[in-house]
Amino acid sequence: MTYLLNSPDDFADEAVRGLVASHPDLLVRVPGGVARSTETPPGQPALVIGGGSGHYPAFAGWVGPGMGHGAPCGNVFSSPSASEVYSVVRNAENGGGVILGFGNYAGDVLHFGLAAEKLRHEGIDVRIVTVSDDIASNGPENHRDRRGVAGDLPVFKIAGAAIEAGADLDEAERLAWKANDATRSFGVAFDGCTLPGAEAPLFHVEKGRMGVGLGIHGEPGVRDDDIGSAADIADLLLDELLTEEPPRGENGYEGRVAVVLNGLGTVKYEELFVVYGRIDERLKANGLTAVRPEVGEFVTSLDMAGLSLTLVFLDDELERLWLAPVETPAYRRGAMPAVDRAPRTRTWDAAEAEIPQSSEESRHCADNVVAVLDTFENVCVENEAELGRLDAVAGDGDHGQGMTFGSRGAARAARAAVDRGAGARTTLLLAGQAWADAAGGTSGALWGAALTSAGGVFSDTDPAGDQHVVDAISAGIDAVIRLGGAQPGDKTMVDAAVPFRDALHEAFDGTAGPAITTAARVARAAADETADIAARLGRSRVLGEKSVGTPDPGALSFSLLMAALGEHVTT
Amino acid sequence: MTYLLNSPDDFADEAVRGLVASHPDLLVRVPGGVARSTETPPGQPALVIGGGSGHYPAFAGWVGPGMGHGAPCGNVFSSPSASEVYSVVRNAENGGGVILGFGNYAGDVLHFGLAAEKLRHEGIDVRIVTVSDDIASNGPENHRDRRGVAGDLPVFKIAGAAIEAGADLDEAERLAWKANDATRSFGVAFDGCTLPGAEAPLFHVEKGRMGVGLGIHGEPGVRDDDIGSAADIADLLLDELLTEEPPRGENGYEGRVAVVLNGLGTVKYEELFVVYGRIDERLKANGLTAVRPEVGEFVTSLDMAGLSLTLVFLDDELERLWLAPVETPAYRRGAMPAVDRAPRTRTWDAAEAEIPQSSEESRHCADNVVAVLDTFENVCVENEAELGRLDAVAGDGDHGQGMTFGSRGAARAARAAVDRGAGARTTLLLAGQAWADAAGGTSGALWGAALTSAGGVFSDTDPAGDQHVVDAISAGIDAVIRLGGAQPGDKTMVDAAVPFRDALHEAFDGTAGPAITTAARVARAAADETADIAARLGRSRVLGEKSVGTPDPGALSFSLLMAALGEHVTT
Repeated sequence: MTYLLNSPDDFADEAVRGLVASHPDLLVRVPGGVARSTETPPGQPALVIGGGSGHYPAFAGWVGPGMGHGAPCGNVFSSPSASEVYSVVRNAENGGGVILGFGNYAGDVLHFGLAAEKLRHEGIDVRIVTVSDDIASNGPENHRDRRGVAGDLPVFKIAGAAIEAGADLDEAERLAWKANDATRSFGVAFDGCTLPGAEAPLFHVEKGRMGVGLGIHGEPGVRDDDIGSAADIADLLLDELLTEEPPRGENGYEGRVAVVLNGLGTVKYEELFVVYGRIDERLKANGLTAVRPEVGEFVTSLDMAGLSLTLVFLDDELERLWLAPVETPAYRRGAMPAVDRAPRTRTWDAAEAEIPQSSEESRHCADNVVAVLDTFENVCVENEAELGRLDAVAGDGDHGQGMTFGSRGAARAARAAVDRGAGARTTLLLAGQAWADAAGGTSGALWGAALTSAGGVFSDTDPAGDQHVVDAISAGIDAVIRLGGAQPGDKTMVDAAVPFRDALHEAFDGTAGPAITTAARVARAAADETADIAARLGRSRVLGEKSVGTPDPGALSFSLLMAALGEHVTT
Repeated sequence: MTYLLNSPDDFADEAVRGLVASHPDLLVRVPGGVARSTETPPGQPALVIGGGSGHYPAFAGWVGPGMGHGAPCGNVFSSPSASEVYSVVRNAENGGGVILGFGNYAGDVLHFGLAAEKLRHEGIDVRIVTVSDDIASNGPENHRDRRGVAGDLPVFKIAGAAIEAGADLDEAERLAWKANDATRSFGVAFDGCTLPGAEAPLFHVEKGRMGVGLGIHGEPGVRDDDIGSAADIADLLLDELLTEEPPRGENGYEGRVAVVLNGLGTVKYEELFVVYGRIDERLKANGLTAVRPEVGEFVTSLDMAGLSLTLVFLDDELERLWLAPVETPAYRRGAMPAVDRAPRTRTWDAAEAEIPQSSEESRHCADNVVAVLDTFENVCVENEAELGRLDAVAGDGDHGQGMTFGSRGAARAARAAVDRGAGARTTLLLAGQAWADAAGGTSGALWGAALTSAGGVFSDTDPAGDQHVVDAISAGIDAVIRLGGAQPGDKTMVDAAVPFRDALHEAFDGTAGPAITTAARVARAAADETADIAARLGRSRVLGEKSVGTPDPGALSFSLLMAALGEHVTT
């Protein structure tokens, strides 16, 4: 049960406000999340870590010397939006590039990824490290495809320590991945958690039973079991992790392990210590040495009842970084060497961000962007009901509304940018972010990424021709494929976008309009053909079979917008 | 619900074991609890803090440089026994005396008090600081009679910092009391907690309601109320505390306050931060400055749902100590200055403790002690059923059994001491502790204190005469009154003991036996007269009226044992 809230909508935001108010020495509030109260030294890589709220101290509780430089804070159990991530990076990055660290979840991959697209187009070196330690979620051969759970703690701790010790971006990224590759977690849960304002828990575990391998948002585990003794559970967790212990004596691993025994919420400290007593015994019996074990609450799930065990198989390099001092609101170890840290003097705020200089030619092109987005909005409004109806067959029925909201948000942002003198590139970058923010959901983020990447092809000063238009469309489709992770045949927008791109390149002879129109017909045919296949990804994966006979609404909306684009460019 | 345990009986002990295993750099296990892994520097006062388990990080999580030197660990929600307290002090104290710090609860007062009696008889300077911050439990005019809750954190933090900064025992005691007198807490609870192994929670709060002022073991609060918004609750807690704000500008208080917002168990961090955001706003509006606020879990109650707010009204001295560095398993702030701390080389263990040198005369006297205790055991066994029957009228019916267990434990320990060559003093000190350990409960602790204090009158080397016997009895009765806190008329053992003592002094003319016998008759008459009054203290306070017509079993057992003593000394 969540007892303390004012309104569910404000919960995550108010929690961040209270966190910052209680740690004015370490944190400042920045748009989208929190950042250190001190400036990132010029040229030092910034470690920006984040994810949904409800997991405190992950992630905002780990911002401070020796660990994170900033944390975008999403809503409870929801990824921060791309603009929140972007904004926190703008406040934390200071010329040394940025590592975006987050647990490997589809929503986070999408929104952090979209932010990365935009940042890269602005010349910021962005590296992405997805923590993937939960062995219940995939096999050892797919370690980097696993979910991220309490392994966030050692991975971000080690990356932060490397940066504090002077690592550049390449080195910090290498060490973060090395830490992730050496980290394994496994957990059990005894009961679910209740979202703020909800009447009932998100899920229940049957009384007397435990979900083995259950995820920190209630994702399915590997099986249900009777709750055993504390020693049984200690053995279960440890035995599972030890199946993936690397060979001792190889690659610098000699049986030294960092240990994190993590409570998810209502399992309390004394219980965790009872379990740890057994783990300590078993580690010794296995010839393993626990290196600064941590027993407590690190990656929580509101009031979920459960715990997880994490092992990091250390070599000297990882051990040194694991043991390095750190000083954050929720995680403090050792004594940070006294270093002069310049107090923060600025807060970057999108609302006050300057518009880059532009040429008249590029501003003219930006006017065209606005006109295209207005057209998109009209097409979305016209088709909203039909797209919603199609989506309701095997999804949640919000695709029509999402497209309307997204295109409207993008059109408004583009117009505002043009009014402030933006060129084509900046107009598209801002419109892309606005689409994702206004639409929410997966398709919103993907359209946002498409516009953002398309914008990267243009310039705010150089003139743009038909080749730029075609390249921008291609770049947008590439971003959708890269970020969305869908393949042709998955019954998504990609089933229309890939044939469209091929047809566009085939038809393009120097004049963009007719080629787009031709390709849009191919896209429409491909979209119609998705009626024959079953959905496999996203929310409709469990209802996939139901979708047979209905075309994919995302593929259809893509083909409709491309047809409108072709017409607009031609006239 | 407590999910993780092996056996309820071993829970608290296994939790301590796991805690120490996870913090080998800071803690060692000693008989009765934990101590720092380093020696207390010779002459430095030791701060020994404790109480029941189930409140982690209170108390064992606060042992380390800048805070506690050791912590006796009781069972869940039960005071540690006097011998556990004694043992931890023997491991922590190193010539500078000791402050025993604990929350103001009857059981803790008794058991820490009994340990203090014994320690003082051994020449150790002992100061007792009872934390009493819970304003729901008594009026402001009786601040030192209130219950201790999350105020444990600032009081022990400040006392520990004072010691780390070089304070001697007087100064550390002064500052601990000063901190306690400046500290106020108030809390609410939304639901109860479940003891390890129990099927049902210790208590429930009605759904949608909150117990205002409810204690950390479920002690009654001031009222029940509907659960309000987070802001309402923040206002409620703060407004109550501010009624006791001292005048600003007087005694060095200028509106600067240490703030502790404490979660009891299942109320999680984000919820606490939402509340803190409002508190921060309100503090500022009231012209108050929060000095290093702490938001998290400090004095928990297993999985109880609730929170408390603590304010410490600071002057410069208290603020400096509140801000000083500290390094313990659960509470770390700032950087401890690098100080060479000698690693611990010894563990004191009662089982291996040496028996002090004794004279033949004192050993002869010790033989008599053994004989008296054997007689006591016989009397208790004979009267066990009747004492139990009397106690069952308004108590829990265990007085007969407790007296048998206690006297038997004392007799055995005395005999073992004599076999190892102990004199009268040491024999009585060990017998007293054994009585308390074997009997448990209040009467066991009081009889233990009586024997211990009686032992202090004797010597291991000097001969003892009848005057010593009478003085020893008086000292024992004084200890019962001092530790038990009962007044004549409360229907306790004191109702027989006080008239007995008066009659003994009156009758004593140099020969102890007949005087004791005479006084025992007075005690018996007084015990019988307790039938006319209603019980007011201890467990029977709620059933007091039921006890009218039945004599107090504690008063009766006292008179029976004194009669047996008189007879024994005379023959």
